[in-house]
Amino acid sequence: MTVKRIRLTVAYDGTNYHGWQIQNNGNTIESELNRALTRLLGEEIHVIGASRTDAGVHALCNVAVFDTRSRMPGEKISYALNQWLPEDIRIQKSEEVAPDWHPRRCESRKTYEYRIYRGEFPMPVRRFYAYFTYRPLDVERMRQAAAFLVGEHDFRSFCQSGSQAESTVRTLYSLELEEQGAELVIRVCGNGFLYNMVRILAGTLMEVGQGKREPESVRQVLLARKRSAAGPTAPACGLTLVGYEFA
Amino acid sequence: MTVKRIRLTVAYDGTNYHGWQIQNNGNTIESELNRALTRLLGEEIHVIGASRTDAGVHALCNVAVFDTRSRMPGEKISYALNQWLPEDIRIQKSEEVAPDWHPRRCESRKTYEYRIYRGEFPMPVRRFYAYFTYRPLDVERMRQAAAFLVGEHDFRSFCQSGSQAESTVRTLYSLELEEQGAELVIRVCGNGFLYNMVRILAGTLMEVGQGKREPESVRQVLLARKRSAAGPTAPACGLTLVGYEFA
Repeated sequence: MTVKRIRLTVAYDGTNYHGWQIQNNGNTIESELNRALTRLLGEEIHVIGASRTDAGVHALCNVAVFDTRSRMPGEKISYALNQWLPEDIRIQKSEEVAPDWHPRRCESRKTYEYRIYRGEFPMPVRRFYAYFTYRPLDVERMRQAAAFLVGEHDFRSFCQSGSQAESTVRTLYSLELEEQGAELVIRVCGNGFLYNMVRILAGTLMEVGQGKREPESVRQVLLARKRSAAGPTAPACGLTLVGYEFA
Repeated sequence: MTVKRIRLTVAYDGTNYHGWQIQNNGNTIESELNRALTRLLGEEIHVIGASRTDAGVHALCNVAVFDTRSRMPGEKISYALNQWLPEDIRIQKSEEVAPDWHPRRCESRKTYEYRIYRGEFPMPVRRFYAYFTYRPLDVERMRQAAAFLVGEHDFRSFCQSGSQAESTVRTLYSLELEEQGAELVIRVCGNGFLYNMVRILAGTLMEVGQGKREPESVRQVLLARKRSAAGPTAPACGLTLVGYEFA
């Protein structure tokens, strides 16, 4: 029988999961996908994920691949698989790709949004999807700092220790701040992100917005090449993977 | 001791509640407020709510009042009360009002949003906050229908039976449709709404958008003055009370 490789575009609400990657304790997106695919296709399936998001992080379009001997047409798998998944995970697309296509071994462009809800009190309907702060943020200062971060840089200072990345050089194509009513959206597009990089970028920009750091100081943060030079890791709930394009 | 009347502006995620009003079974927003206020103030408190929203309906700014002998300044109650409430209910404001002020006996302007997520598959992060449909909607047709509904009309056809309203005449100041990416927002502002009125308006407009009804047909729906003339009651999760102004 012929083996084919299927690519899934996966959306999920990360609130109730211990992140993407299989762990000994607690449900993960990866384990739910493996379980549902194994039931649907009658073969033991192990997906390979593109972005291993942390606990509480959301995705509109994460990517995973797996190999199967099933004769089910690739584009039909999404419909059938969604019947076997919990409602906080929904396949948005399924398609057959080349047998050697691998989501972490090809050029890609990812876009993340980090959302900050600004108000005197938290807004319940946004509590899982935006980080709440009552502290005023000077968005213009944050934009000035963001401009220094765009481009190719060594982002080691914005990488949580424990990362296994060989190189810490990445390219940010854009880093924009958009105000949507009470929410401030930090939207960042790049060719790849280190462990916790977007959350550390957000935490550092928030310090700039609060006046704790000067906008220009982020240049020194880049040059320092150590985690302690940057700001705190912003909480997971504000983060959503919103775009994923492959070359 | 002096009794004073306090007005609360209350935001909540309605997903896990059986609506606003106290019921024999299940938690409600009203019962949570009474419980938290009674604990905080040491007196038995019964709030009077402005909009008795249904199970699953959300609010950014519902209103409630209560009387207390407490000497705590009205504007401080919000901070203290939030400590006693679950995180899906958050007081946004508290203030002292005139002792005879009653939220259902004064002129007001309420704004509701009904959100529809349009896509091939549901989007998990929006599953509790927007109604999902894969059916195409012709927004221009829906706008044409909406125009016939603005103004003062007898909305009896848009009122679920069982309502105790004396008059079914209401005024819609505006009824707008706004596309926000994959979401279509039906935003309606009026001097009051009958039981399930916004959800029946949304259900009827969706039938127009799907081509099941002509835009002009909503004029006959108004004239019929019976529930069966209108479309279905759209699901609760899409509905949020977003604005409340008093004269």
